[in-house]
Amino acid sequence: MVRRHLVIKEFDEGKTTMTRSLAAKAAAFLDLHRGTEVLVLTNAWDVASARLLEDAGCPAIATTSAGIAFARGYPDGEKMPRDEMLAEVARIAASVEVPVTADLEAGYGAAPEAVAETIRLAIEAGVVGGNIEDYTQDPEAPLYDLELAVDRVRAARAAADAAGIDFVLNARTDTYLSASHKLDDPFGETLRRLQAYQDAGARCLYVPALNDEAGIGGLAEALDLPLNILGGPGVPPVPRLKELGVARMSTGSGLARAAYGELRRALAELQGIGSYAYARGAVSFGEMDRLLART
Amino acid sequence: MVRRHLVIKEFDEGKTTMTRSLAAKAAAFLDLHRGTEVLVLTNAWDVASARLLEDAGCPAIATTSAGIAFARGYPDGEKMPRDEMLAEVARIAASVEVPVTADLEAGYGAAPEAVAETIRLAIEAGVVGGNIEDYTQDPEAPLYDLELAVDRVRAARAAADAAGIDFVLNARTDTYLSASHKLDDPFGETLRRLQAYQDAGARCLYVPALNDEAGIGGLAEALDLPLNILGGPGVPPVPRLKELGVARMSTGSGLARAAYGELRRALAELQGIGSYAYARGAVSFGEMDRLLART
Repeated sequence: MVRRHLVIKEFDEGKTTMTRSLAAKAAAFLDLHRGTEVLVLTNAWDVASARLLEDAGCPAIATTSAGIAFARGYPDGEKMPRDEMLAEVARIAASVEVPVTADLEAGYGAAPEAVAETIRLAIEAGVVGGNIEDYTQDPEAPLYDLELAVDRVRAARAAADAAGIDFVLNARTDTYLSASHKLDDPFGETLRRLQAYQDAGARCLYVPALNDEAGIGGLAEALDLPLNILGGPGVPPVPRLKELGVARMSTGSGLARAAYGELRRALAELQGIGSYAYARGAVSFGEMDRLLART
Repeated sequence: MVRRHLVIKEFDEGKTTMTRSLAAKAAAFLDLHRGTEVLVLTNAWDVASARLLEDAGCPAIATTSAGIAFARGYPDGEKMPRDEMLAEVARIAASVEVPVTADLEAGYGAAPEAVAETIRLAIEAGVVGGNIEDYTQDPEAPLYDLELAVDRVRAARAAADAAGIDFVLNARTDTYLSASHKLDDPFGETLRRLQAYQDAGARCLYVPALNDEAGIGGLAEALDLPLNILGGPGVPPVPRLKELGVARMSTGSGLARAAYGELRRALAELQGIGSYAYARGAVSFGEMDRLLART
């Protein structure tokens, strides 16, 4: 009995220490959204990419669900089981000191309870923030009804609060990504959804595939919470996003796909003239080895 | 009883089918070493890279132990546990149709029995070839004594034969990689070792870090088995390797490190002017999604 009691006490102390450390990281991460500069949030897909991003000075790191899924052999869109995805997220989070936020897709289940459980498990995996989107995974009816979508955000907030950290819940709407062709007024629908998610406990609001300056600036102006934009071709560069009032720019799967693009170019050189010029742009073996020896 | 018997029978038939399929792949892979062209053997480090290589027409794929270790959070050199490494190898092998050969480092143990077990497990993981090196993992005494090194190759061969496939055992000597500064006659030692590995049951012979044309040509001339050279900076390009008699050029961790190099360049652009030109060289989201949907 005594021994079991001691073990439980030690476990609780360990958990408290972990929670305290996560709480501090969550606060530091939230602060990064309130600076004068845009938070450039780069997305890792494995430990090596996370370590390289941290080593290059990124103040926080996001995961890309698509990049992780591709690396592990799945297409995007919750095809990779939640436990496998979170195991990868945990591996990445454990490998860096900076705060990590996870792309948690649509929370792996329609019900608010499923979303809450995903948030709880994500915090256990060591992240201090996460995206929850309102995409149903059903192209025929792509967006959750607003009432359910809000309940899902509220459940995520409650699960985070129960864990004792100010989890940076990034509520994402897919109004421009997957359903714009069906929306009469995408901007209005986006604003309505994000204002509702704001009231339901989000800490940041995310609209991927919104590229036009008027829309971006209009949302940043109308919303109280920090606005997250997905960077990429056709999107205003970071300095312009700053002028438009954007707080956070994330890269989604873009960096992972850029890296795989380099693989393809290197292969074309090998299959073509059979030389090794691609190696000039590689990270050296010694540097990779040293970066990973520290994890 | 009847039911259990049926299950075992089905399992055995499944295993026999798998062995037959692996045997055919092993034979096809060995044939690739006997063509008139150099076998350009590119090394994958995750499923996405393997699928991209296969999609681009690679007739076979190798794994890079260093690349896999980096991606999963380990430095190189058997720091990643064998079961974890082989789980990654299995994931890659299951994702492609072409033959896969694995970098099995030094076989995860000094004893011939350990090497044999590693070969047995690698075949279970679905590969039809593998590298076994004679590096001890001890920089102070980097090479196994020749007698033990030969016993290790012989044990690997026996384990492969017991599995019923003509496993393409690639016996690697690290005479140039880690011990050259201690060898009076690196070429002579290399030749002596590779001839002994040849007699012990190897199907291919591998000398990483041997870059000079005279050495490469001399070995190719003196050996009966196909010679594998590690491609990279300072190494003759593939057409010249062909003239020198090389049968197989592999890329080690070079392609993985090139991909991570692109991540670093993309990040520099984001941190610098904050634009997204890096995205022009990326594999598109749709293409990645389609490539991975087929696994």
